[in-house]
Amino acid sequence: MTAKPDVKPDLDFVPIAKRIREGVGLQGFMAHIGAEISELARGTCTLAVDRRPELLQQHGFFHGGVTAFLIDNATTIAAATSRGQPALTAEYKLNLLSPASGERLICRARVIKPGRQVAVVAADVFCVIDGVEKHTATALASIAMLAESVSTRIPSPV
Amino acid sequence: MTAKPDVKPDLDFVPIAKRIREGVGLQGFMAHIGAEISELARGTCTLAVDRRPELLQQHGFFHGGVTAFLIDNATTIAAATSRGQPALTAEYKLNLLSPASGERLICRARVIKPGRQVAVVAADVFCVIDGVEKHTATALASIAMLAESVSTRIPSPV
Amino acid sequence: MTAKPDVKPDLDFVPIAKRIREGVGLQGFMAHIGAEISELARGTCTLAVDRRPELLQQHGFFHGGVTAFLIDNATTIAAATSRGQPALTAEYKLNLLSPASGERLICRARVIKPGRQVAVVAADVFCVIDGVEKHTATALASIAMLAESVSTRIPSPV
Amino acid sequence: MTAKPDVKPDLDFVPIAKRIREGVGLQGFMAHIGAEISELARGTCTLAVDRRPELLQQHGFFHGGVTAFLIDNATTIAAATSRGQPALTAEYKLNLLSPASGERLICRARVIKPGRQVAVVAADVFCVIDGVEKHTATALASIAMLAESVSTRIPSPV
Repeated sequence: MTAKPDVKPDLDFVPIAKRIREGVGLQGFMAHIGAEISELARGTCTLAVDRRPELLQQHGFFHGGVTAFLIDNATTIAAATSRGQPALTAEYKLNLLSPASGERLICRARVIKPGRQVAVVAADVFCVIDGVEKHTATALASIAMLAESVSTRIPSPV
Repeated sequence: MTAKPDVKPDLDFVPIAKRIREGVGLQGFMAHIGAEISELARGTCTLAVDRRPELLQQHGFFHGGVTAFLIDNATTIAAATSRGQPALTAEYKLNLLSPASGERLICRARVIKPGRQVAVVAADVFCVIDGVEKHTATALASIAMLAESVSTRIPSPV
Repeated sequence: MTAKPDVKPDLDFVPIAKRIREGVGLQGFMAHIGAEISELARGTCTLAVDRRPELLQQHGFFHGGVTAFLIDNATTIAAATSRGQPALTAEYKLNLLSPASGERLICRARVIKPGRQVAVVAADVFCVIDGVEKHTATALASIAMLAESVSTRIPSPV
Repeated sequence: MTAKPDVKPDLDFVPIAKRIREGVGLQGFMAHIGAEISELARGTCTLAVDRRPELLQQHGFFHGGVTAFLIDNATTIAAATSRGQPALTAEYKLNLLSPASGERLICRARVIKPGRQVAVVAADVFCVIDGVEKHTATALASIAMLAESVSTRIPSPV
């Protein structure tokens, strides 16, 4: 009977999420890696990928390049959720904390500071070993937010 | 009789290069991307990969994750050439400068400062469009150099 | 009346903290900035500085260089708390999130991953405006941990 | 006999340089450090500072915070030279390569990629020991370029 305005669903986010999922669904590299969007909400994005031999380096760990790919994509997607504005990775820095072993790699990105021009996004990567998460990398990214009119000229990855 | 000591071949580098190529040859992810070591010398490494649909994002450019993979691998390999010491990516930062279009992506890494503990390596990525190179990314990396005794415990990617 | 073993004081940290404070006390630049160690514990360090005209840029905000100094020093000090090992800044990346206004600048650094060779440390900087903190910068640093024998040759800042 | 159009002076740069020098001249922190703009041209800026006890750490080297300040300011100034657009440091990463000893510290910044929204700028820092330069730090920065209308609201450091 009494509407709770503070918990009403974020209906504006539905078309934004749809557009993001469609765009990411067209990324050949996302499919080649075999990664999926496991969570998507305003200001956050989680990507995950299961272990496969072709994602590893010579000692049986996930290759650092897989970790970097997850960070690149998750931070840009997280930035795009803020207003549905097209987003383009400008730069990021990542620290590898420990070898990425186990059966699954998960990257969680969260917007630290939204912005019309540049958004700042943090990301952490965890590997799952027998069901337990271990922190394997941390990153900090700057994402260029494009105006719609610009984005028709400079395609964005999201 | 007229030996030119300043241009004599770097014979010590032959076994180092052999070991690096063997290690990289065992990386499942390197093969999955389809990248190759196109140049390898003391203090430098060049990796390259040809355009294929599975390396692209939805607008037809090389995915930023491919660029990041090349930087990750090339900087670590370049650091390993200095003394043949096992090397492990500690961290890097990359700036994407322009969309990576064209038929080929090339990453050139060069050691700025060798070190027994940490080496600093710079890398630049170029895309080749109709045979002409365009600067598409630049990066700065810190590579942890492992002692042999340590490297048997903590496997290095190179 | 009875000792609580889980909250017993970290007595080993006392000489470490003493040595760190003495070293930092000898930094001419720390005094020139007018910064102080406001908190020091195992794995963390907080530095703070009050507003003074000579720390500002032309629009009345704290200069970005003051923020960078606090990050540089706080991350290295935090790394040194882990084992009392001498520490040397290897690299860091910082993102400025908003203009640093107000009466005081505070930098809190925390070790994300200790290491015998390289420690990874995160830091956040807040400006205090009428007693309220605002997030003004975030950073990620790699700190080279020196062996005692090495540190006598290569002086460390902490 | 005829004017050489390819060497004609960049007259448009004169008012830009004037405005930059005036803005930097108002930075209290620049004066507190005692740094000066030693070179300023389209796309580049060089800052320098002489050794003084208050710029050092406890082992007699220039403090890393001085190096960071020079990088912060020089990269932003270099970005502002491109079109005279107000510029604001968004982020940077620096690697310290060797202890900064000697009598003078010099930071040379150069624009790698100008941009209306984000400029990418590289910088290298050298210390001068008995007149000889030694490479002591390298950095990579992203500078947010502000529209004039925005800059009246969000003050820029340059």
